[in-house]
Amino acid sequence: MTQLIQAKKGIITEQMKKAAKKEKISAEKLAEKIAEGSVVLPANKNHKKLSPYAIGAGLTTKINVNLGISEDCPNYELEIKKADLAEKLKAHAVMDLSCSGDTRPFRRNLIEHTSLMVGTVPVYDAENLGKELPELTEEDFLGMLKTHAEDGVDFVTLHAGITKNVLAHMKPADRIMPIVSRGGAVIAEWMDITGKENPFFANFDKVLDICLEYDVTLSLGDACRPGAVHDASDSMQISELIVLGELTKKARDAGVQVMIEGPGHMRIDEIAANMLLEKKLCHNAPFYVLGPLVTDVAPGYDHITSAIGGAIAAASGADFLCYVTPAEHVKLPDLSDVKEGIIASRIAAHAADLAKHVPGADNWDKEMSIARSNLDWKKMLELALDPEKPGKMREESMPRDPAVCTMCGKMCSVNRTNRIKEKIK
Amino acid sequence: MTQLIQAKKGIITEQMKKAAKKEKISAEKLAEKIAEGSVVLPANKNHKKLSPYAIGAGLTTKINVNLGISEDCPNYELEIKKADLAEKLKAHAVMDLSCSGDTRPFRRNLIEHTSLMVGTVPVYDAENLGKELPELTEEDFLGMLKTHAEDGVDFVTLHAGITKNVLAHMKPADRIMPIVSRGGAVIAEWMDITGKENPFFANFDKVLDICLEYDVTLSLGDACRPGAVHDASDSMQISELIVLGELTKKARDAGVQVMIEGPGHMRIDEIAANMLLEKKLCHNAPFYVLGPLVTDVAPGYDHITSAIGGAIAAASGADFLCYVTPAEHVKLPDLSDVKEGIIASRIAAHAADLAKHVPGADNWDKEMSIARSNLDWKKMLELALDPEKPGKMREESMPRDPAVCTMCGKMCSVNRTNRIKEKIK
Repeated sequence: MTQLIQAKKGIITEQMKKAAKKEKISAEKLAEKIAEGSVVLPANKNHKKLSPYAIGAGLTTKINVNLGISEDCPNYELEIKKADLAEKLKAHAVMDLSCSGDTRPFRRNLIEHTSLMVGTVPVYDAENLGKELPELTEEDFLGMLKTHAEDGVDFVTLHAGITKNVLAHMKPADRIMPIVSRGGAVIAEWMDITGKENPFFANFDKVLDICLEYDVTLSLGDACRPGAVHDASDSMQISELIVLGELTKKARDAGVQVMIEGPGHMRIDEIAANMLLEKKLCHNAPFYVLGPLVTDVAPGYDHITSAIGGAIAAASGADFLCYVTPAEHVKLPDLSDVKEGIIASRIAAHAADLAKHVPGADNWDKEMSIARSNLDWKKMLELALDPEKPGKMREESMPRDPAVCTMCGKMCSVNRTNRIKEKIK
Repeated sequence: MTQLIQAKKGIITEQMKKAAKKEKISAEKLAEKIAEGSVVLPANKNHKKLSPYAIGAGLTTKINVNLGISEDCPNYELEIKKADLAEKLKAHAVMDLSCSGDTRPFRRNLIEHTSLMVGTVPVYDAENLGKELPELTEEDFLGMLKTHAEDGVDFVTLHAGITKNVLAHMKPADRIMPIVSRGGAVIAEWMDITGKENPFFANFDKVLDICLEYDVTLSLGDACRPGAVHDASDSMQISELIVLGELTKKARDAGVQVMIEGPGHMRIDEIAANMLLEKKLCHNAPFYVLGPLVTDVAPGYDHITSAIGGAIAAASGADFLCYVTPAEHVKLPDLSDVKEGIIASRIAAHAADLAKHVPGADNWDKEMSIARSNLDWKKMLELALDPEKPGKMREESMPRDPAVCTMCGKMCSVNRTNRIKEKIK
């Protein structure tokens, strides 16, 4: 039985208890949210080491760290180090996006190795089955999903919403970048060549059977997410979202947990409307956003363009942020890119939790500001989201008076104000 | 005659022509906005090398780069390099915040050297007049302003709004960090010790006389800006803003240009309301924001916390962003911190320009996305906000197939989609 089926029956699972504790809410309250579908608890029966997290409305915003090898960078050891870094820096999930060669041994190692939720995109195996794309059958696509499910993947991105009808919007939408989703493009090309309907859409009942067997959470992929701000919120994107909403209902009725993937590249003024639309069209399913990147012009700094968009998105209702590294649009990220990406994403998630008034979220900020007010440098560094970087900065630039910093020295406003404050007390 | 007085008389100045050209609007249109006070054109008569920019509603968002020595880091050459970097990276203004020693020679050098707008905070000289703080007279404070005005400073931060009445809010407001403004804290301590009214408030007519003589734009400082998210939007902050609004009217009536400085540390959900309040209470004066930093917990990464806040602020009406570097709260920034800070701030400003639908702002993004769609790497790097970093990244991680990148290799969605796109055409 999946977490959803158990929640509907009022059964409180061990995973629910653990995840609820992390949110500082009762397991019963969490079970209610899972039962109604506004929260998911991705937990594959075969992921034995999992320390579960719940994702959805009213909870803290979660973040995901992409990793995995590519054709040009087939270093599996480095990718395991990224998973370790994700755990150290308090991310909640990793997605193995390996897209070349035999992906199974690494995937199994990763799932055995990490306590974070693990997600994958099974269709990335399409070119590694020893067949040309047009020769792949619907059973082949389902087989990819089945393999990942057996391996213990907690959530899978499935591009089940890019149907023939949705694809028909491609020409009139006249996008600059029609499809930027890797998995979505595989499905679209297969549909284009074979003339057949989307294999996951056409066989959604079989998809659900596989997910039910292992309790795989469906992360319904947005093959039509905008990859340029110019292309955002158009008919291609929204018509796919409508299909994803319909599939959400089917999956939930069958007892399969669902979240929805979202944009993408998008101007700031469009983000809140997109969050609202997802919650409406997809019946309050948790929203997992890939950005949004608020401008196209800053390669090398897309951890920042997406921290801006991610913070706004999560403050407006998104529940799960996929990190973006400085290497986005340029190369496979190295460890330092991964670190920058995780930190930017954690900042966005926490800033959104403050904005959403998640209970207790502001305690951290209060403690930090009290330490600042006391000029307590040890405490400030302990509390820092990343103690390493500011610690090194301060070591390299020590002021004569250790109470202050080299920005202001004797002009320190905190020192000065504390003198007045004492008198006012 | 100031730009404002001339604009009111319908006189089109050379500075207006130059600034209007940069905005791709007519000089007449710009003059109208200057006349009504929704736009300022900071241009001190003694800043001969100035290439003027206008700041305010309907125009592109501008950014400022702080520099200047401190007691612990008295390296003037480095600070000139920061000004050069600001110019190279297309910032619009620099503020010399030198707060130790004899500040005048460097200030004059800087103004002679740079074509960017130059701002200062004259009261930072308070401790360098050879007197103890309580011994300073009102004339001393006005003298600091006069000296900076003579030197050619285009805009000055003046903390004229922290009056006795405003300061009375300090105790009931019970902030974690009562005053984090360096200049504001100087004024507050002087008021606290001497028992006198704010010297700039009490002598505002004399302030205006000095500004009129040199056409110095007043940047009315927010001494009570929140320095912790907990302290934002409270009575101390808003009561000061009300005073700044009253001073705005006086200054405008006298022919002095005014902009208003704003927060600070602030949760995302409070930003839009703060932008609206400033425009209402301060009669549509341009808003110059110092952040806002959307969380307190990320020292070492405050270029990101403030890029999030700055983008939201500017998208909601702020006109001018003060950059924040990764060194904020820790040390005086070095050149690499300055670069990171400028880029983050430019991203925020441009993302806001897209959101505000500033005419033509999205052409840049369109060109970039067209280059991406064509896998035209040369063009992508040329168009990049910072070509240096992504260029180096790509050099270090070249794919076997130079059409793609090492993230996806043969799984490149752009390549794949272009194949479908051709068929659909």
